Formats: sequence, structure tokens, C-alpha cells
Amino acid sequence: MGNLSWIAVDWGTSNLRVWGLDDSGNILGTVESPLGMNAIASDPKLSFENVLVGLIEDWLTADAAKLPVVICGMAGAKQGWLEAPYCDVPARPSDLAQGAVAPKVSDPRISVFILPGLCQRGDADVMRGEETQLVGFMAGHPEFSGWVCLPGTHSKWARVSDGKITAFRTYMSGEVFALLSQNSILQHSVDDGWDDGAFADAVRRAATQPTAFLHSLFGVRAGALVAPAGASVPPGASVLSGTVIGTEVADVLGLLQPGENIALIGAGKLASLYQAALAVHHHKAALQDGAAITLAGLRQAYGTLISASMASPASKEN
Amino acid sequence: MGNLSWIAVDWGTSNLRVWGLDDSGNILGTVESPLGMNAIASDPKLSFENVLVGLIEDWLTADAAKLPVVICGMAGAKQGWLEAPYCDVPARPSDLAQGAVAPKVSDPRISVFILPGLCQRGDADVMRGEETQLVGFMAGHPEFSGWVCLPGTHSKWARVSDGKITAFRTYMSGEVFALLSQNSILQHSVDDGWDDGAFADAVRRAATQPTAFLHSLFGVRAGALVAPAGASVPPGASVLSGTVIGTEVADVLGLLQPGENIALIGAGKLASLYQAALAVHHHKAALQDGAAITLAGLRQAYGTLISASMASPASKEN
Repeated sequence: MGNLSWIAVDWGTSNLRVWGLDDSGNILGTVESPLGMNAIASDPKLSFENVLVGLIEDWLTADAAKLPVVICGMAGAKQGWLEAPYCDVPARPSDLAQGAVAPKVSDPRISVFILPGLCQRGDADVMRGEETQLVGFMAGHPEFSGWVCLPGTHSKWARVSDGKITAFRTYMSGEVFALLSQNSILQHSVDDGWDDGAFADAVRRAATQPTAFLHSLFGVRAGALVAPAGASVPPGASVLSGTVIGTEVADVLGLLQPGENIALIGAGKLASLYQAALAVHHHKAALQDGAAITLAGLRQAYGTLISASMASPASKEN
Repeated sequence: MGNLSWIAVDWGTSNLRVWGLDDSGNILGTVESPLGMNAIASDPKLSFENVLVGLIEDWLTADAAKLPVVICGMAGAKQGWLEAPYCDVPARPSDLAQGAVAPKVSDPRISVFILPGLCQRGDADVMRGEETQLVGFMAGHPEFSGWVCLPGTHSKWARVSDGKITAFRTYMSGEVFALLSQNSILQHSVDDGWDDGAFADAVRRAATQPTAFLHSLFGVRAGALVAPAGASVPPGASVLSGTVIGTEVADVLGLLQPGENIALIGAGKLASLYQAALAVHHHKAALQDGAAITLAGLRQAYGTLISASMASPASKEN
């Protein structure tokens, strides 16, 4: 790792991902681990520093200059390594980088910067980790104006304009779908069956009666009970998923201003369901790979931190 | 039980309630049991008939005339004693009584009638048991026009006019509240604390953005995270409950026509929360006791069945 000049880390609740990078941002190595915030919090023998150094030990040399490590995600939570207080919206990428905190580190070979999350006080909301994906997306799409969607257990929609994140909304759709399909009376209506048309129909219905969510859920079960004998019943998973994602998408589309665009960050089944739900409403959204976008956001933060440290070599230590 | 002339039964999923009545409808005795449909379905030694006869054995005599037993609820489900096919809306109370089925009974001392549930095919929905409460309510309020609410795990709202049940909507609010407060990330935000004002605020917010349910849920957690240090945070249970019930109530109020009224059937904490949520919207709803209303509905059905059997002594047997 001759040219290693800094390290990027995405430290989540249940895992972490580490990249070793040269000064041009090329990836020299990567490593992943299941030791997310929760694993560390529940094992008194583990600390954030020990876990990190254990993972990158082979990359480190007893160089005179400390290697910068830039971290986003739950390492900055109250229960994390060192709390990085939320940055308020509206926020520029540089505001986020400037909000980084530097925990005291015993190992002389590294210096650590933990990026803050974002918060919104009016319509109360928070994110921690996704803001760095947004920064990565904005770096690649400086002219973008509209809503960026990050599907997940708690999906996030952020409004981006003029190089700022101006507002965002978290939707508990993924967790609500999981609870309903596994733990509610609807579990008897949901199996492995899937039908794209039934999903699209449910997305459309959710948009025509977006206030009726708690009623529409029961329709997943009742639809099968009232179907005439022998009639084919649409697979419950498609109807439930279309109802949940469709209700979320309908709410966001109600906020969309003329001229605003939509972008989707993510991969796999879930992201493509969001893409399909948006397509029902005639919105095209290209998929952006989430991991690449996170690294792009960390690169952006590193650039800001490096310029700042060149301007003023004293770093905030805590 | 000298004057016992018929028996009324409310047979639910997890319990049953039996009344012995004279010809004027006076209650001569009552008995309750945990042997609801689920307990019988899971124990091959139990049958609906044996459970019923076991409970009323002391009331029965070797009289020449069979004692009529009128049952509502899950005894008429597919997995029950004998399926009583759903009656379609719009339905009059007499339509429901005329849809009763009569299972074959070994005991010569009783004849059994099981009332059907209601179904709605357009906006798919079903109920089984609550229709008899609606019939009981309608018997006491023949001029009522509007929506009748039966709060519960799956709350039901039925539109009543001209002596008919014309439409209804089930809301999964109770089950969704239980799952979110016990099994989701919101469990950390919900404890024993309660504040009526915070509940009312959440009901109001739910009405101003009724499409945002899946987003508002996350606000229960985020509200506490973004509150300034030392600020008092509204109890999560009140906010979550207000968000869920408020979203349901806002949806129904959107369907309310001029001149339509609202009635609430139920008792205890849950019913009074619905009453409080309606009061936020300046709707007064008197509480009607659920058990009394069920018995009134069974009385009504008995009256119809008796007139019918006098007109034609042959009963539908299966």
C-alpha cells in the first residue's frame, strides 16, 4: 500500500466498510466487517479504535505523518465512538465536512474525523450516513434539482437544490412492510408469490386514496376473502408492497414542484420496486449504486477537510 | 330457568359469551368462556356443539320443543362450526337474519342458528360479529344516518342510512399501533407516559397531512432526537396513538356527507381515545356499550327468525 494517503469508512449499525485510497482517490484496498455500532456497544471488550486498527493494521506504517481516516455513519451517534452533533438543514456538503469531530486516538499512526448526520427541526427528522450518500450524489450531479430517494428499512427522501440539501423525509415503509408481512394478520395473505401487475395496481390505488393507508392494508386480506370461488387472487406480497411503497411515493409526489427531478440511490430488489412505483406515475429515475455514492461522499468530505487543515493545521480534538 | 325461551351467543375468535333469555328478552343468566374459535380449532377433543352444551347444560330441560340458540361471530367462519356465507352490502338487519345457517346438532334439546357476516366487494372488506352490533345499534336508533365506529384491533366504520348498512371500512389501526409500539424501532420512544394534549396535537397533525402516515411515524422518534437539550418531549405513546387514530379518523371524516352523524360503540380506554380524536374535529360521539348492543342485535335476529319459522316451520338444516 505504498501510495495509501487516506482511509474512508462507512460505519453502520450492523456492519462497516473500509476503503484504502491514494491521493487521487483510487481504491487500493477494501475490507468489510460485521462489527457495526451495535456489536461494539454490546461487547465491552471491543472499542471503535481497536476494531478499526484491527481491520487496517496491515495497511499502516510507522510513518511520521498521521494517516487521515474519514468516517460517516453511526460512529458519530450518541452511542457511537464520539457524538458528531447533527447539522441542520439547509446544509451544503462543506457544512457537513466542517461539522466533523475528531475523537482522541491512542494509535499514533492515524487521525480520525467523524462526519455529522443531518437533522430537520420543523418537521422533525434525522439521518446519519445517508447524508454522505447525498453529498456523493451531488458531487456527480452538481446541477440536480429535486428529490433524491434512498430506499431502505427507513427510506429517506431529500430535497436538493442549488447545491444544498434543503429538506428531507424519512418513511418507515420497509419496517412497516416487514412487521405486517411477518407479524400481523396479513402474514396469512403473504407468501412467495409475486405479480408485477398487482404491485402496479396497488401503487395506483394508493395514489387515488392516499389517506386510506390503514384501511387499504386490510384489503390485502379482504380481497382474497371476497373473491369469487375459483377466481385468481393477486399475490398478497405484491399488493402489500404496492400499498406501502405506493403510499410513500404518492406522498412525495404531492410535494414535487414543477421542474424538480427524482433520483434513486440503491441496488437490488427494493430499489427496483421504487423504480417501478415511480414508473407507474410516469417518473423515470435512474438507479445510482449506493456503495460507490457513499465513497464519493467520503471523498468529497476528505477534500474539504484537507483544504481546511492546510488552511489551519490545528484540528478540533476531543 | 323456568321461563327460558331462547339462547343468544356471541362467539368470537378468543372467547364466547352466552345469554339465557325469556320471551320478553329479559336476561335470565349469562356465562362466558375462553373457548373461542381458535381454542376449538386447535384442540381435536373440542367441538362447537360440545362446548356450547357444556356451558348451558344446567339450563336445558328434556322439553319437547327445541330451544333456539342464535349465534353471531366466528362460529360462522370457514374455520368455525358451519360457514355462514357473507351477506353483501347494502344489507338490512332482516337480510342478515335470513342468511343464518343451521348446523346439524346431535343434542335433541336445541336448534342452532348461526348469523352471517357482511362483505363488500368493490372496496374489498369483511366483518363477522360486528354486523350484529350494528343491527343492535340500528334497532335502538332507527332514524340514525351516518357512520358507526366500532374501535378494536381492526376497527370498523359502517355507513348506515334508511335502515340499511350501505358500506363499511376496516382499519388495521389497533394492530399497527401494537406492532409499532412493541416490535419496531419506535418501541424505544414509547413508554407508560401519556399526555392528552400531545395526543390531540398528533390527531390535528394527522389531519393536516393525512397522506404522510409512514413519514409521521418516524417523527415519533425524531421529535425526541431533535428536541433541544432539557426540553420536555411529548410522551411517545400519545404521539403514536394520536398519529394512528388521527390518520384513521381523518380518512373517515373525508367521507362524511353533510347531515351525517357519528356514533361510537365500545367502552374503556380505546373507545374514549376515538371520542377524544373526534372531539379534536368538533364531532361529538356518544359511547354505546358494546356488549349490550351485541345482545340487542341478537334479539333483533331472533325476532326475525321466529317470525320466519312461524310463517314456515321447516328450518334450513345442513
